[in-house]
Amino acid sequence: MDNKILEQAKAAKISSRVLACVTTDEKNRALGLIADALEKRCGEILAANALDVEAARAKGTSESMIDRLSLTGPRISAIAEGVRQVADLPDPVGEVVEKTTRPNGLVISKVRVPLGVIGMIYEARPNVTVDAAALTLKAGSAVLLRGSGSAMHSNETLVRVIRDALRETAIPEEAVDLIDGTSHDSVDEMMCLRGYIDLMIPRGGAGLIRRVVEGSRVPVLETGVGNCHVFVDETADADMAERIVINAKTQRPSVCNAAETLLVHRGRPDMLKRLCSALAENGVTVHGDEEVCSLIEGAVPATEKDFAEEFLSLDMAVKLVGSVDEAIEHITRYGTGHTEAIVTGSRENADHFVRSIDAAAVNVNASTRFTDGFEYGFGAEIGISTQKMHARGPLGLREITSYKYIVEGNGQIRG
Amino acid sequence: MDNKILEQAKAAKISSRVLACVTTDEKNRALGLIADALEKRCGEILAANALDVEAARAKGTSESMIDRLSLTGPRISAIAEGVRQVADLPDPVGEVVEKTTRPNGLVISKVRVPLGVIGMIYEARPNVTVDAAALTLKAGSAVLLRGSGSAMHSNETLVRVIRDALRETAIPEEAVDLIDGTSHDSVDEMMCLRGYIDLMIPRGGAGLIRRVVEGSRVPVLETGVGNCHVFVDETADADMAERIVINAKTQRPSVCNAAETLLVHRGRPDMLKRLCSALAENGVTVHGDEEVCSLIEGAVPATEKDFAEEFLSLDMAVKLVGSVDEAIEHITRYGTGHTEAIVTGSRENADHFVRSIDAAAVNVNASTRFTDGFEYGFGAEIGISTQKMHARGPLGLREITSYKYIVEGNGQIRG
Repeated sequence: MDNKILEQAKAAKISSRVLACVTTDEKNRALGLIADALEKRCGEILAANALDVEAARAKGTSESMIDRLSLTGPRISAIAEGVRQVADLPDPVGEVVEKTTRPNGLVISKVRVPLGVIGMIYEARPNVTVDAAALTLKAGSAVLLRGSGSAMHSNETLVRVIRDALRETAIPEEAVDLIDGTSHDSVDEMMCLRGYIDLMIPRGGAGLIRRVVEGSRVPVLETGVGNCHVFVDETADADMAERIVINAKTQRPSVCNAAETLLVHRGRPDMLKRLCSALAENGVTVHGDEEVCSLIEGAVPATEKDFAEEFLSLDMAVKLVGSVDEAIEHITRYGTGHTEAIVTGSRENADHFVRSIDAAAVNVNASTRFTDGFEYGFGAEIGISTQKMHARGPLGLREITSYKYIVEGNGQIRG
Repeated sequence: MDNKILEQAKAAKISSRVLACVTTDEKNRALGLIADALEKRCGEILAANALDVEAARAKGTSESMIDRLSLTGPRISAIAEGVRQVADLPDPVGEVVEKTTRPNGLVISKVRVPLGVIGMIYEARPNVTVDAAALTLKAGSAVLLRGSGSAMHSNETLVRVIRDALRETAIPEEAVDLIDGTSHDSVDEMMCLRGYIDLMIPRGGAGLIRRVVEGSRVPVLETGVGNCHVFVDETADADMAERIVINAKTQRPSVCNAAETLLVHRGRPDMLKRLCSALAENGVTVHGDEEVCSLIEGAVPATEKDFAEEFLSLDMAVKLVGSVDEAIEHITRYGTGHTEAIVTGSRENADHFVRSIDAAAVNVNASTRFTDGFEYGFGAEIGISTQKMHARGPLGLREITSYKYIVEGNGQIRG
């Protein structure tokens, strides 16, 4: 065990007890100071980021990765604005979720409380460093940020700016700390810190998430892998189906709520043809099963992997099914519990699909792209959970809290 | 991997999809049939239980353990009555927790859904077999029951009775299954069945719980270990303090919500003396720190372990503290996040204690013994969670469910 990480976690745990009792006003003031400091120290942040970008280029990193890593003046302003928006959100801590008076006079309140210390593991996007810190602080928890080694200069500077701002507040600066992202072992070390870290949130590729989910002794919120389907039912409106399929696949293909597989009812070969030609027009390669390939010119044969994994690109697996039940069966086999959509004109089929599909979000006549904290009205999100425990779907402020029961009496004892 | 357990888990998973869609009426009818069958086949159950009890006696098992293991006619009737009470509880599945209409017209409903398959691991109390099956069925989940090997004949018969009853219903009998309790490895095998088992709930001693919490790759609800404290503040009413301390310690010393440590404000030596003599009168041995031992005749010196672990017997660790903050500090160090109580006449001290203590239940002027699903009005419970993720405190039907978002539109796409 790296003693540094243990020390950081211990300090975060101690700070979390102070943070848990900080008022909403003081938390919001701290977020305002952080936002101001990010803008004021923009030059310093950009200089650090330039070192990371230079190193990434020297390693031959792809341009799309370089883009994710790169900060600019306007990007830093947008990040600061995001922090101010978190300050404007209602404070989840202290919310009375339920309150009952028992026959014996005991008043039992279920009250939202902070989780304690949250460990975030993520890849080379420096904006996540600030977003995660802002959200966890507002939710009353300390955060240990383990970003990618390739963003280390940027992250170090961002965390220094945040901590300098915290020094002028009632929040201990130890409540935000950066874990060494250049060490592969640091992830494993964090996963062992049961008792110090209360929750791990891995964000990134399927491999990273699997590693944390399978190895962690600290509870995990599994996020992000979305092998999402759109099923176009026999009764679907063709215009609506085309609009939804194109949006779900092409509006932002690299994200987890983009659709990866299209299932079309076999009774509508016209629909299949129309959708496939719309996909082709939008630059999407259709990976069809044998039947689809025999009907659609330009379709390439789909492999098992095409149905089982995310493309995250302008590719879509396409398959004909004979019924809603066959669509449900396919999705049950290949889905990752993220978002599944049906396009249908039948209330009955919609209800059957909604009841039978086991996923965070089941959409009827709406694009899969809506599974998102902002779209749900949460104001912000720290990820999308694909697990069933604790929180499912978009993770807003409430979803990164716990609760406790406060039981108030006047001397009651149990008979 | 024992293929039998994998096969049982696979069958439970498949059955859970059917069970998730079974109506409330049908689930309640099934629970009624199970209750009737338990009473009708009482003789068969008692004969099997007699084999377990005989074997336990032959092994020299303690009388208190024999008592936990033993069934009688009235006990079986009480178990059947418990099943009927679960049928009377509201169905958590399908409950619309929240519903919002977004500016774009999307209607987003957050709806309670079953978890899937729950793995219960517990010790030699055959009543848990039936209680857990009834609660998980009502919550729409299948259950894999891994009781103790010493209750194997009882459990086999009870599960056979339950499954025979299910055969007359729409619920597949595979939704309730018994895992071999005579094999130590079966616990480890269950803990690896990620994808088949959705949640593990260990109930029993601290050792069992630690083993599951640390080793499981399936998410866990940690239950039961309660190193609960009562802090008697300087401003406490002496009558109330005595009533609460005696109830919390002696009403049922072997359970997790019994108090284990008494903290008394140093400014009230009169209170300390009164409480310790009341404890002695009730047969409780006081394990005092040095200061307490110097003041209280008959107190035995407390070890570190006395403060750190549960006694679960008529023993209590006792310590003087100088302030509410010192009490909070002690509890933060030794508490297990179960139930912590303050007896006080000061609103300010009560509020400070409630805010600062991180536990499932924080009680003001009420016995620790109230942390219980029935006392909270949940109607039943499957355990008491001492973790912060998913559910905290008494676990009723709602707490063993998940939720999903149903998003209904009329062709909305994301801009």
